[in-house]
Amino acid sequence: MPEMSIFSPLSPPQRLLMGPGPTNTHPRILRAMAADMLGQFDPEMTDYMNQTMELYRRLFETKNQWTFLIDGSARAGIEAALTSLLEEGDKILILNNGRFGLLLIEIAERLNATIQAIDLPWGEIASLEQIEAAMLSFRPKVFACVHGDTSTTMLQPLEGIGAICQRLNIISYVDATATLGGMPICTDKWGIDIISAGLQKSMSGPPGSAPMTISERAAHYIASRSHTEKGIANATDHQGTRSRIRSNYFDLAMIMSYWSEQRLNHHTEATSMLYAAREAALILLEEGLEHVYRRHKLASSALRAGLKAMGLKLFGQEEHTMDNVTGIIIPEAVDDQTVRTAMRNLFEIEIGAAFGPLKGKIWRIGTMGYNAQKHKILHTLLALEAVLRHATSFSPSEGKALKAALQVYEKGVPQ
Amino acid sequence: MPEMSIFSPLSPPQRLLMGPGPTNTHPRILRAMAADMLGQFDPEMTDYMNQTMELYRRLFETKNQWTFLIDGSARAGIEAALTSLLEEGDKILILNNGRFGLLLIEIAERLNATIQAIDLPWGEIASLEQIEAAMLSFRPKVFACVHGDTSTTMLQPLEGIGAICQRLNIISYVDATATLGGMPICTDKWGIDIISAGLQKSMSGPPGSAPMTISERAAHYIASRSHTEKGIANATDHQGTRSRIRSNYFDLAMIMSYWSEQRLNHHTEATSMLYAAREAALILLEEGLEHVYRRHKLASSALRAGLKAMGLKLFGQEEHTMDNVTGIIIPEAVDDQTVRTAMRNLFEIEIGAAFGPLKGKIWRIGTMGYNAQKHKILHTLLALEAVLRHATSFSPSEGKALKAALQVYEKGVPQ
Repeated sequence: MPEMSIFSPLSPPQRLLMGPGPTNTHPRILRAMAADMLGQFDPEMTDYMNQTMELYRRLFETKNQWTFLIDGSARAGIEAALTSLLEEGDKILILNNGRFGLLLIEIAERLNATIQAIDLPWGEIASLEQIEAAMLSFRPKVFACVHGDTSTTMLQPLEGIGAICQRLNIISYVDATATLGGMPICTDKWGIDIISAGLQKSMSGPPGSAPMTISERAAHYIASRSHTEKGIANATDHQGTRSRIRSNYFDLAMIMSYWSEQRLNHHTEATSMLYAAREAALILLEEGLEHVYRRHKLASSALRAGLKAMGLKLFGQEEHTMDNVTGIIIPEAVDDQTVRTAMRNLFEIEIGAAFGPLKGKIWRIGTMGYNAQKHKILHTLLALEAVLRHATSFSPSEGKALKAALQVYEKGVPQ
Repeated sequence: MPEMSIFSPLSPPQRLLMGPGPTNTHPRILRAMAADMLGQFDPEMTDYMNQTMELYRRLFETKNQWTFLIDGSARAGIEAALTSLLEEGDKILILNNGRFGLLLIEIAERLNATIQAIDLPWGEIASLEQIEAAMLSFRPKVFACVHGDTSTTMLQPLEGIGAICQRLNIISYVDATATLGGMPICTDKWGIDIISAGLQKSMSGPPGSAPMTISERAAHYIASRSHTEKGIANATDHQGTRSRIRSNYFDLAMIMSYWSEQRLNHHTEATSMLYAAREAALILLEEGLEHVYRRHKLASSALRAGLKAMGLKLFGQEEHTMDNVTGIIIPEAVDDQTVRTAMRNLFEIEIGAAFGPLKGKIWRIGTMGYNAQKHKILHTLLALEAVLRHATSFSPSEGKALKAALQVYEKGVPQ
C-alpha cells in the first residue's frame, strides 16, 4: 500500500549514528530550525547573518571578515572555493591520499585546471618537505588538500603549509568538512587562505550548509574575477579584470557582496540552515573549544582502547588519526555487511562502511560532536562485542572492551 | 554589547511575510525539520527520498522518474539544469522579460553558451508565435524561460511550447521557482523537459531546497555527459561520450544516480531540508491541488480588489498576473521606503520592494502558500490603508478596501 507510506507522518527511527557522518543532530539545533522565516533583508535576518559570521570566525580561529555559509552540502563549499579560484589552465597542486583528495582533483578537472597531484596510498599523510618540494617544482597558483579525510580517518597536519604558500605566492585551500568542531582549525596561525567545512560531522548539525572562511589575500584575488549580474548591477559596482567565475551560484565575489553591508541580492539564504549553523556554533563556543576538542580526543581514545581490547586492529598511522573517526580493520572471515546490519537491527546503531580501496576492508566508527559522549562510546563497544561474539567466528572475550574504555575515561588523555 | 547578542537564544520576531518570498513557513514543516538525522543510505532515509520523488511527481503533474531535490536555493536548481544541459558553444534561446530571465542569460554566459534572447520589457509576456519564430530562426539546442517571474509578477503561459520544442528537437527548461504550489505546473501536458522550483514561495517551506523534474529525453541527453568521479567509480559504470559537465555539485547525471537504486555516493543529502520538502508536498496534496490553486486565485483576487478600491493602480497585464504576487504602482509623491518601513514597524508586515527598472516604482505583495489566507489578506489591506492615510499624502477612503476584498471572498472567483 504505497499510498499509506507516502502520506504517513514523518517518523524516522531513533538511531545512534556512529558512522563517519551525518551524526545525530543536537536537540538545540533541531529546535532552532523550528523558528519561522524572516524577510531576506530584514534587519533581524541580516543581524543573524552578521552574528553567524562572528561565531564562525571564532570556530575557525580567524579575523577574516569573509567568514560565512555556502548554501549546500559540504561539497558545495569545496566547489565554491575551487571554482572561484581556478581560471582555465591554472595550475593546482592537490594532495591525493583519500577519497576527498580525489574529489578535489575531480572538481579541478572539470574546471580545466592544470593539475599535479601528490599521490599517496590511502591512509598516509604527506610531510611538509614533500609538499614544499612539489610546490617548488610545480609552482602552482593554488594548493589544495583535505584536513581530515573520513575515507581514511587520517588527519593531515597543516602547520607550516600556509607560510610556504605565502612565500611562494600560492593560494591555499583546505577542506575541513570532517574536522571543524572536532579538532582545532587554526586558520590565521596556519595561514591558510580558504577553509570550508560542513555541519553534519562534529558540528552536530544537519547536512546542507558549508561554513567557509576566506583570507583578505584570497578575497582580493577573487574580487578580480567579480562581474555583477545584470538586472541588479549598479553603474558603480566593481567589475573585475580577470575571467568571470564559471558558476553564478558558487561565485564567491557575489556571495561576499551578499554577506557584506552592500547586501547584493544573490541567492535567498537558506534561513533554517542559517539558524542551525548559528546554534551549532553557539553550543560549541558555550562549551569552550578546548573542552570540545578534549572531549573528542577522549571519546576516540576510549573507543580505540576498547576496540584493541577486543583484539581488533586499527587502520592507519595512530599518531595521525582523526579524533572523531576511527578505522577498524575487518578481521578475516568476518563479513562486513553482516556485522553492520546486526548493529543496526539489534541495537539501532549505525557504523560506517568504507569506499574505494578500503571497501570491505575497514569499518569506520565516528565519535563526532553530540555523539562524542561516554555513554554512546560504551554502548557502541558493548553492542559491537555482542555482535562479533554471536554473529561471526571472531570471538572477543567478554567485558574487556568496556573495561579498557572506562580506564581511558578515568585516566584521561594527555593534553 | 555585541557578546550578548551573538550568544542570545535565537528569537526572530513573528512577522507576516507578504512579500514575494520567502513567505512564512507552515508550522507542520517547521515541526518536520525538528526530526533527527538518519544515515545517508539507511533504508528509512532512501525510503523518504523515494517518497519525496513520488510526492513531487504529483505536484509537477508528471510521470518523470527523475523528480527529486537539488540541495541549495532555487537558483541551485536553475544552475544544475543549465550546467548539465549546455556544452561550450551550445545554442540557447532565452526569454528575457524580467530579472530571472536575466539570471538565465547570466548563467548561460558563464557556461560560454551561444545565447539569443527574446527581449521584452519587464512586465510583458511572449506569445507562442514569437517564441516559435525565434526558435525557427535561431535553431537552439535549449530553450529556457521563467514561468512566473516575481520581479514583474507576470506569468508566462507554457501551453504549446513543449510541442514546438519536441518537433524542433529543442530541450526545454522552465524556472518555476515562484509558481510551484501556487499555480498548476502541468509538466507532462506541456511537454517541458526540465522544470525546477523552490520551497520558499507557495510551497510554504524554508529556502534551501530546489525540487526538480527531468523528462526521459533530457535524462538520456544528460547521461551522454556522465563521467563518474574517481574513488567511487565501478568498472561497470556508464561513461558518457560527450563533454563532461563543468560542475560536480550540479552534475545531474551523478545526482540522478544518487537518487536511483544505484545510490552513487555524491553529496550528503540535506536531511532536514528533505523532511521539509516532503512535508510541504504532503500538506498541499492533502488539501488537494485544485483547492490549493483556487485558494491562491481567491487570495490574489481579493487583494487586488482591495488595492483597486483604495485607488491604487496595479502593475502589468491583469490577464497575465501570477496568482501569488501582485505588483502595485507606487503613487506619485509617495515614498517607497517610508511605507514599507511603517508596515513593518507598526504592523510587523513585510511587503516587497522591486528590482532593476521597477525599483522604487512598484511594491510587490505576495499571497503565497500559508499566507494565501483570507485573514492575512484583510490584515494587510487594513494596515496598508492606515499607513497610506497617516504617513503619506495619498489618502484612500477608509474601509473601501476591506469591503471590496470581502466581496471577492463572498462571490468567489470564476473557475
